Amino acid sequence: MSEQSAKPYLVRAICEWCADNGLTPYLAVRVNAQTRVPTAYVKNGEIVLNVSASATRRLTIDNEWIQFSARFNGASQEVAVPMSAVAGIFAKETGYGFAFALAGDPVASLAAATAPRDGEALDDSKLGRNGDDGKPKARPSHLQVIK
Amino acid sequence: MSEQSAKPYLVRAICEWCADNGLTPYLAVRVNAQTRVPTAYVKNGEIVLNVSASATRRLTIDNEWIQFSARFNGASQEVAVPMSAVAGIFAKETGYGFAFALAGDPVASLAAATAPRDGEALDDSKLGRNGDDGKPKARPSHLQVIK
Repeated sequence: MSEQSAKPYLVRAICEWCADNGLTPYLAVRVNAQTRVPTAYVKNGEIVLNVSASATRRLTIDNEWIQFSARFNGASQEVAVPMSAVAGIFAKETGYGFAFALAGDPVASLAAATAPRDGEALDDSKLGRNGDDGKPKARPSHLQVIK
Repeated sequence: MSEQSAKPYLVRAICEWCADNGLTPYLAVRVNAQTRVPTAYVKNGEIVLNVSASATRRLTIDNEWIQFSARFNGASQEVAVPMSAVAGIFAKETGYGFAFALAGDPVASLAAATAPRDGEALDDSKLGRNGDDGKPKARPSHLQVIK
């Protein structure tokens, strides 16, 4: 069957759930030639982006792309991520969310992509201070792999 | 943490995904004192309801309740299901969707709740004919248990 992947619908669902509950949606992205992200923050081919309303401007999540503008180290930058490069979406504070199997490396990248590390998690207001913001770096213990 | 469950967000996501892809969203419900469903179609304490736009009227899915009106055996009936009684949401045609662990019987009911059986799957246009509509009864092979 050729139906559209449910992934964008689940990404939107977790973003809306986070917004309604005061949680911070983190988007894990497998960087490739199509992704437009701040390369300085890419680690091991992956980046984790804060896609909360307060950290982004003009955020759009359609069925093909996630696009927004955000400030990185003081400079505004346009970000564009194809849905196919989205490795996960989860709440920073609880780790609840989804990991998605990606073509090419369906399993190997998931743990790295969805486990925020110091400096990898970008936040408009806390950039560079993720390591000392006093909150535990929750591991996404409830992540489900969705094919 | 006391945040709202993500369940209603996922139910809406799968319903929207089904609507956009011509699939039929089936809602598996664990019947209890709070549910308002056609009791004639309850089997083993559970019922599977077609919640597509074409099978329902005035469908609302908020964070606490799913409510709609539908015709069962020719008679219109109001249906109300608390989110806590929702055992699963999946596409009839492919089985893709989610099963949810319920309080009280977190595992035992899932297989029964999410595996459509003849006569258990209600459809406004095909009521009573689910057993011979020529389509295979897909088992929900991609269901994920979300806590």
